[in-house]
Amino acid sequence: MRQSGLLLNTLRESPGDAETASHRLLLRGGFIRQLAAGIYTYLPLGRRVLRKAEQIVREEMDRAGGQEVLMPAMQPAELWRESGRYEVYGPELIRLADRHGREFALGPTHEEVITSLVKQEINSYRQLPMTLYQIQTKYRDERRPRFGLLRGREFLMKDAYSFDADWEGLDRSYRAMFAAYHRIFQRCGLEFRAVEADAGAIGGEGGTHEFMALADIGEDTIVVCTCCDYAANLEKAEAREGRATKRGEEQTEHSAASSGRPGMEKFHTPGVKTISHLVDSLGVGPADIMKTVVFMADGVPVAVAIRGDREINELKVKNALGAEICEPADPAAVEALTGVPVGSVGPHGLRIRVLFDSTAAEMEEAIIGANERDYHFRHVVPGRDLTISQVGDFRNVQEGEACPRCAEGTLKYYRGIELGHVFKLGIKYSEKLGAAFLDVSGKSQPVIMGCYGIGVSRVLSAVIEQNHDEYGIIWPASLAPFLVHLVPVSIKDEAQKRVAEEIYERLTELGVEVLLDDRDERAGVKFKDADLIGLPFRIVIGKDAGQGRVEFVARRSLGVKTPLTVEEAIRRVLEMRGEANDRRLK
Amino acid sequence: MRQSGLLLNTLRESPGDAETASHRLLLRGGFIRQLAAGIYTYLPLGRRVLRKAEQIVREEMDRAGGQEVLMPAMQPAELWRESGRYEVYGPELIRLADRHGREFALGPTHEEVITSLVKQEINSYRQLPMTLYQIQTKYRDERRPRFGLLRGREFLMKDAYSFDADWEGLDRSYRAMFAAYHRIFQRCGLEFRAVEADAGAIGGEGGTHEFMALADIGEDTIVVCTCCDYAANLEKAEAREGRATKRGEEQTEHSAASSGRPGMEKFHTPGVKTISHLVDSLGVGPADIMKTVVFMADGVPVAVAIRGDREINELKVKNALGAEICEPADPAAVEALTGVPVGSVGPHGLRIRVLFDSTAAEMEEAIIGANERDYHFRHVVPGRDLTISQVGDFRNVQEGEACPRCAEGTLKYYRGIELGHVFKLGIKYSEKLGAAFLDVSGKSQPVIMGCYGIGVSRVLSAVIEQNHDEYGIIWPASLAPFLVHLVPVSIKDEAQKRVAEEIYERLTELGVEVLLDDRDERAGVKFKDADLIGLPFRIVIGKDAGQGRVEFVARRSLGVKTPLTVEEAIRRVLEMRGEANDRRLK
Repeated sequence: MRQSGLLLNTLRESPGDAETASHRLLLRGGFIRQLAAGIYTYLPLGRRVLRKAEQIVREEMDRAGGQEVLMPAMQPAELWRESGRYEVYGPELIRLADRHGREFALGPTHEEVITSLVKQEINSYRQLPMTLYQIQTKYRDERRPRFGLLRGREFLMKDAYSFDADWEGLDRSYRAMFAAYHRIFQRCGLEFRAVEADAGAIGGEGGTHEFMALADIGEDTIVVCTCCDYAANLEKAEAREGRATKRGEEQTEHSAASSGRPGMEKFHTPGVKTISHLVDSLGVGPADIMKTVVFMADGVPVAVAIRGDREINELKVKNALGAEICEPADPAAVEALTGVPVGSVGPHGLRIRVLFDSTAAEMEEAIIGANERDYHFRHVVPGRDLTISQVGDFRNVQEGEACPRCAEGTLKYYRGIELGHVFKLGIKYSEKLGAAFLDVSGKSQPVIMGCYGIGVSRVLSAVIEQNHDEYGIIWPASLAPFLVHLVPVSIKDEAQKRVAEEIYERLTELGVEVLLDDRDERAGVKFKDADLIGLPFRIVIGKDAGQGRVEFVARRSLGVKTPLTVEEAIRRVLEMRGEANDRRLK
Repeated sequence: MRQSGLLLNTLRESPGDAETASHRLLLRGGFIRQLAAGIYTYLPLGRRVLRKAEQIVREEMDRAGGQEVLMPAMQPAELWRESGRYEVYGPELIRLADRHGREFALGPTHEEVITSLVKQEINSYRQLPMTLYQIQTKYRDERRPRFGLLRGREFLMKDAYSFDADWEGLDRSYRAMFAAYHRIFQRCGLEFRAVEADAGAIGGEGGTHEFMALADIGEDTIVVCTCCDYAANLEKAEAREGRATKRGEEQTEHSAASSGRPGMEKFHTPGVKTISHLVDSLGVGPADIMKTVVFMADGVPVAVAIRGDREINELKVKNALGAEICEPADPAAVEALTGVPVGSVGPHGLRIRVLFDSTAAEMEEAIIGANERDYHFRHVVPGRDLTISQVGDFRNVQEGEACPRCAEGTLKYYRGIELGHVFKLGIKYSEKLGAAFLDVSGKSQPVIMGCYGIGVSRVLSAVIEQNHDEYGIIWPASLAPFLVHLVPVSIKDEAQKRVAEEIYERLTELGVEVLLDDRDERAGVKFKDADLIGLPFRIVIGKDAGQGRVEFVARRSLGVKTPLTVEEAIRRVLEMRGEANDRRLK
């Protein structure tokens, strides 16, 4: 393609609301333009990259045995009512009515549609297993669309759904998708981790993993072992079980040891309402305090006690209780329940069920709220002074903690961008929507499902977050809009023009995607633009063109300029393409 | 692909509401399933065909110099208000509000979005010409969705937009798209005509053509010359100009000849209200009567007189008057204007402007309404008794009329399915939305636009309407979901199974798309399914498999079964693929 005819306006400045490198560079490099908040047009360069990402996803889905379908974005509201999600989904679901007043949703996902399809189409175990996928535009009315393609309201997604006759089958389908995801993100040149995640409201039995690109701007905190391949979302990351058990044993010792300790003692703490206030006024550390937080779990109050320097993980509490909805009770409700303000609540004599995080249970002695306004207890020895009926892991793990899986590693925090997820749905949707099959013995069974998503447009942002420098984007060959940027220093120079045209024709003939900067612009402008849009390889045709010599530059190392003959430059490009293809076929 | 694992349920019966062959066969062959009225899911076979159609469109758009972009379906209502179409578009435009109450439309087309994009991105003549296109899902809330993919509410469309600095440039861009469309529909194996069409409400200067697939179920009547390549929509088809002129001369003769005729005479026609009533009661033919119809053109009444056996073409009237809106006046309005009922109106002494169709002006003598209740005139000689200030072509042409272009041909009617259109928009949108560029002399000018659409999903229906028989679909190689259907008569027969697997492996290795019917089904079932889904070539592996012999069958001529060796069959497939590719590259 000749750059003079390409719709490509690079921008020196990026709009003020572009907070992340990928958002800025996609705008500045002329890849996308915003039409409305979270809604973007892909310009020619952006469309090319998106199509490459689509194609990688498609190839790997096909290789994993997936069959491509295409489902509509307009979904009848009745289907969503059947699954029970129409009301639950909230304002993220875009709703509309047709000319006859019939209600529709614009699909943020397609569990309902595919389950109802499968209900019609599958009736025997002989048709299973089956995995269907589509690459299709999704709609989610995000409260706060941002970061360009990272959190948009209209975006391209690959969603796949597996259907199995038994749970072992689901495991196999899940593993096949898991492996395909690894290949996809590898081919996109991403540094990523498959992290254990929570099943959340989408519900269902069994496992789920999120594939996270490591990036500082990521909206999720992930926890990764320094030694083994353990990785999990912070909300899901387990504290090391062994440790807990060990502490449990220690705890017995504590109980024994506690006989020498001073007895529990109530003391006056006028006006003290928060942990930090308590710390300041007593001159102790947060780790000396046991804090108690009251939750409402499906309408029932439950307290959680944890060491003061730790954070409660609401998800772990929710899961331990098997609750549908579990959130901190508001202060008024706490006061109504306990008779005292939030800051005075403590586990001693509280007439609410108390869960003890192991950090709390293992404290040698603690300061706790006295369930009496302006009073606390000190010298509280948990094994001696508190009735501990349930100890568990109810906290966020911290950096530096031991890995829950391996003996050597410690945990480290990263920020992650969610690229995709794989999810064992089980029979949640097939039961609700009646998608059943006859098993070998002729008995009707709900189909066992998995679902598997990838944010295809989001992949572009993640790749740029990981592959850019101060000058612009550094595309991996697999996603680059063109493989080679041909830059004659001056298109008015006859020799340069001739050599540029020759290389352009020959590479194009060889099936290499080449962008020829045939604009009559200053060299500085052309190089700046080339740096910004970030094609992997550049051939600069300058003053030695008359001698048939050019410079070869890889975008990843701009400083390294290799002088080559035209023949050598062409051969180098073909080698580079070969390497990229090899990576693809691996 | 192995058929045992393919999501493919063929149906014996088709749903009762499937009125057309393509709709029935797409459902019965397991290509699509309806989710809601006019909204379909593409199953794996259908998705494959759709992708092939997409790819043909993309290749030809690229070859014609188009650049692919991708615009959102969610379009801010403000843009549609700026163009003035938000209110005008009516209930076909799907409207919705986001969580903040901001209004959006789901794009039925993208003139507004692309014009506002180009307004930002193009500012100099040096950036022109440019053609941008996308292949993207469109939404139109059809009052009566029907015929499967032919008139849907959510469908795949290719829309392209050209931008030029001058009108000659627009002509060139238009011709390039026109040629690309020919190639696209040829590659899809369609019998089609590019017909002259009316610019309609989408507006703009200059020409427009519709590409029509010839098919009995088509919703449009098109008029085609038996000799030359003249073709037009009925509404646009011209009566032969030469004829009109000639008749004009004859008319003078008539006027001379009329001196021998009886004079105009009023006569009583009690209760006669319609032409057919007049014909019955007087024993004359419709061609002896001149009928007069009153229109309201932008609020002004205008009458049109035409020979009684002809139909008025409202579009020609509208265009002759340069009116925005032109429709027949309702009977009450006619009576209010003329003082008589509709059936008594005539051109003699009517105090409303009268347009004479040339068929009326050329009548030797005529019966006309007398503008007096229950009276008509007879022996009316137009050149003698009527003031004829404007004669023209205000009628639908009829089959058998002479071609307006060539000397030899006559006109013939066909039914057509609109596949696409090419349209000179001119500056309609660029003026309204302010998309201007600086010309060579530094003067700001509105960009000159063309727009070009293809209903990609609709192409599938048209292809099937033209390519099917009583047994099923007959896909052209370019669109077939697979090129070859391998059908072992009995998969339990060891020799058959071995040969089938061998051919499957070898063809797949050679990059041929093969569907292997490895199901344990009766031969009759397999052949019925094969006929129905209609892959172009079939290799039947039967009782001679042990001798390495198979049968080769083209779907287009099921009766011709060619016995071949395995080697010959493979060679035949490669020849067939080669031919298909040659057609592609032509």
